[in-house]
Amino acid sequence: MARLVLKFGGTSVADPERIRRVARHVKREADAGHQVAVVVSAMAGETNRLVALAEATALEHEGLMDAREYDAIVATGESVAAGLLALTLQDMGLPARSWQGWQIPIRTSEVHGAARILDIATAELEARLAQGQIPVVTGFQGLGPDQRVTTLGRGGSDTSAVAVAAALRADRCDIYTDVDGVYTTDPRIVRAARKLERVAYEEMLEMASLGAKVLQTRSVELAMAHRVKLQVLSSFAEPDAENPGTLVCDEDEIVEHQAVSGIAYSRNEAKVTLVRVKDKPGVAGRIFSLLADSHINVDMIVQAVSADGVSTDMTFTVARENLAKARDTLNAVRGVIGYESLVADPGVAKLSVIGIGMRSHEGVAAAMFRTLGEKGINIQAISTSEIKISVLIADEYTELAVRALHTTYGLDADS
Amino acid sequence: MARLVLKFGGTSVADPERIRRVARHVKREADAGHQVAVVVSAMAGETNRLVALAEATALEHEGLMDAREYDAIVATGESVAAGLLALTLQDMGLPARSWQGWQIPIRTSEVHGAARILDIATAELEARLAQGQIPVVTGFQGLGPDQRVTTLGRGGSDTSAVAVAAALRADRCDIYTDVDGVYTTDPRIVRAARKLERVAYEEMLEMASLGAKVLQTRSVELAMAHRVKLQVLSSFAEPDAENPGTLVCDEDEIVEHQAVSGIAYSRNEAKVTLVRVKDKPGVAGRIFSLLADSHINVDMIVQAVSADGVSTDMTFTVARENLAKARDTLNAVRGVIGYESLVADPGVAKLSVIGIGMRSHEGVAAAMFRTLGEKGINIQAISTSEIKISVLIADEYTELAVRALHTTYGLDADS
Repeated sequence: MARLVLKFGGTSVADPERIRRVARHVKREADAGHQVAVVVSAMAGETNRLVALAEATALEHEGLMDAREYDAIVATGESVAAGLLALTLQDMGLPARSWQGWQIPIRTSEVHGAARILDIATAELEARLAQGQIPVVTGFQGLGPDQRVTTLGRGGSDTSAVAVAAALRADRCDIYTDVDGVYTTDPRIVRAARKLERVAYEEMLEMASLGAKVLQTRSVELAMAHRVKLQVLSSFAEPDAENPGTLVCDEDEIVEHQAVSGIAYSRNEAKVTLVRVKDKPGVAGRIFSLLADSHINVDMIVQAVSADGVSTDMTFTVARENLAKARDTLNAVRGVIGYESLVADPGVAKLSVIGIGMRSHEGVAAAMFRTLGEKGINIQAISTSEIKISVLIADEYTELAVRALHTTYGLDADS
Repeated sequence: MARLVLKFGGTSVADPERIRRVARHVKREADAGHQVAVVVSAMAGETNRLVALAEATALEHEGLMDAREYDAIVATGESVAAGLLALTLQDMGLPARSWQGWQIPIRTSEVHGAARILDIATAELEARLAQGQIPVVTGFQGLGPDQRVTTLGRGGSDTSAVAVAAALRADRCDIYTDVDGVYTTDPRIVRAARKLERVAYEEMLEMASLGAKVLQTRSVELAMAHRVKLQVLSSFAEPDAENPGTLVCDEDEIVEHQAVSGIAYSRNEAKVTLVRVKDKPGVAGRIFSLLADSHINVDMIVQAVSADGVSTDMTFTVARENLAKARDTLNAVRGVIGYESLVADPGVAKLSVIGIGMRSHEGVAAAMFRTLGEKGINIQAISTSEIKISVLIADEYTELAVRALHTTYGLDADS
C-alpha cells in the first residue's frame, strides 16, 4: 500500500463527464489499496471567467484592485471543482469529502494573488486517510495570516499538490494533465519527439522555466526541496504498465544519463541592444536596476568587449510583452546612462538544450554550435548553466533548429 | 445617523453594470452619514448553474446527494457576488470588504441545504462599522457545527439580511429587489393595484406564504420576532421621499388599518376529493399522516357533514406538482382507509384577502362571498384565520375574482 496524491488540472475537470473520468482514475488507485488524496484545479475556463468579472468591476481605478477580494472571487472555482469531484466519487461508492484551503488550513504568506504555502495542517487529513476517506483538496487556495482566502498565482494547483504530498509524506504525487508525460521536445514541432521515462528535478526545472508548460516551475522546486516523486501522466488515457507517464525524480534514481535529455524553446523573447554604452563601472548595474524597478525581468545578457576602451554594446533579452516598457524605461534615462542608440528586435527565440549528463559528457556545446552553423543559423547570444546551454536565434529558424538538434543529440524515436 | 443593512437580490447584481447601480445605492446611504452593512445574493442564474452542475455529477444514485458538498458548491455564488460588490465599492472610493459566512462566522444548525441561523458574531463587524468600513456579507451562507459551509435554502439571503440586521441592532433592513414595494395585489392582474406605504408583519407573513414572492416567509418571521423594520424597495429606481418603498413594521406603527390590505392568489393548487370515506374516528388522521410521510404538504381541508352517518366526502388541496404523488399514495391504501373513489382537480386556485383590520371590521367575509357570487364564481372551500380569508375557486376565474375583490375592498388606486 502506498500513499498517493493525485492532482487534476482544469482541462481534466472541465465538465461532469470529464470529472467522472477523473473519478475513475481515483477509484482505480483506491481499489488497488492505496491511500489517496486528491488536489483539483478549477474547471477549465472558470478562473478566466472569474478574473474577467473582477476586472469588469474596476472601471474607474485601473490596476488598483484589492487582491484580497480578487482572491476571494477567483478561489471559488476550485471550491466548486472539489465539491463536484467529491460528489462524483461518492456517487461511485467511494467515501470522499472536499476540503477548502481555509478548512485544512493550508496556511500561506500574506501576499494575496501570489501567496506562498507556509504550513499545511495534516492531523485531520491523516485521520481521514487512515479511515479510508479520500480528501479532495482545492488547489490554488490558502488561508492568509489575515484569516482571508489567498491564492498562489496562476498554475498554483501543481504547487498545492506537491505541498500536500510533502506534508503527508506521500510516496508519489501524480500530476494528471492533458499530455501523457514529459517529452524530449515539443511533439508539435518534432514528430520524432520521445516521451521521457524519467527526468531529474534539475532538468525538469530548466525545462519548466524555459517554456515547457507541463509543470509549474515553483512546483518542481518544491518537489526537489522535499524530494517528492512527481509523475506526469494523462488524465485522458488509461495509464498502463507498458506506457506510464514520466517520473520526475532525483538524479540518483536515473540509471543512465544521456548527454542531453531535452530541447526547449521560447518564442516569447525580444532582444534589446544599447549601442555605445559608456564602458565604466556601475553602468550595467544602473541599467538593470532600472529595469528591475519597472518589474521587467531580464534574461540573457551579453556585453561585447570594448573596442575603444570608452564605450561598448550591451545586449539583453526581455519577455516580448515587456519590450515597449523596457524601451520607454531606458529612453527616459538615456542622458543619465549615456548610450548612442537603442536597437530592439522582437523577432528572436531562445533555444535550450538540457541534460544532467552534460556534466560528464564533453562537446555538447560544440555539437550545438556546429549543428546550427551547418543550417546557416546565426547565434546572437549564448548563456550556459551546469546542465543547460541556451542560445538566441532569429525566431523564423526555431522549428528548423529544434529538429536539427533533436537529431544531433540522438533523441529521435525509432520510427 | 442610522445603522442600515441593505440587501440586494440576484437580479440586482446580475452583471457588473447592475452591481455598479447597487454600489450607488450603498454610496448614497453612506454619503448620508449612515453606518451601512450589505448582504448580497448570488448573481442571477448563478445558483441554478451551480445546482445543475452538482446534479449532473449524481448520475447513478439519484436523490442521495451529500448536502454538505452541495452547500460547498452552491454557496460560492454569494462569495463571488460579495467580492465583486466590495471591489466596486472600493472603485467608488468607499472602504468595503467582503465577509463570507465562515469568516464572520454566521453559525447555523447542522441541517445542510436548509440550515437555520443560530448566532452571528458581531464584534468584528461592529468595529469595522465604527471605523466607517462597509461590510459586504454573503447571504444564504453559514458555518455549520461541523465547520463546513451550510446554506439556508432558496431565498435564504433575505433571512441572512434580517438576521444580520437583528444581530447588529440596525435601525432598518432595506430589501432591494426588482419590484418597488408591496402591492395591494399583483399589478400584472389589476392595473389599479396600489403600493402599500406600510404593512404589518403579520399581513406580510400571510402575503408571503400565500404566494406574494416579494419576501421569503422565514425572513418575515425573523423580522417580526426581532422587531426589525423591513423596507422593500427597487434596486432599479432611485428611491425618493415622494415615492419610497413599503415599510414592513409592527402594527402599532400603522395609524389607520383598512379592513383589507391586500389580495393574494396562488394558482399552484390542486384539489383532491375522497368520495364516501368511512366516517369514523382516526380516518382523517391516518390519511394526513400518510401524506405527510410522503412529504406532501396539505393546505385547505374540508370535510362534509355525513349525510348517512356512515361515510362522508373529504376534500383537501395540495401543491399542483404533488398531485400525482398524492394520488399514488392514497390509491395504495384505498382498501385500508376505505373510500369509494378519488376525484382530482388540478384546475383550482386559492384566493385570499388579508388584513389586520379584519379584526375590528365586520362583514369582510360576507363581502367576499357576495362579490364572488355576483360574478357567478362558485366557492369550493373556505379557510380562515384571524387576519385572512381564503377560498378555493376554479382557476379560470382567478383574474376576474381578484379584480372584483380589489374594487369591493376599496383598494383601487385613484385613476
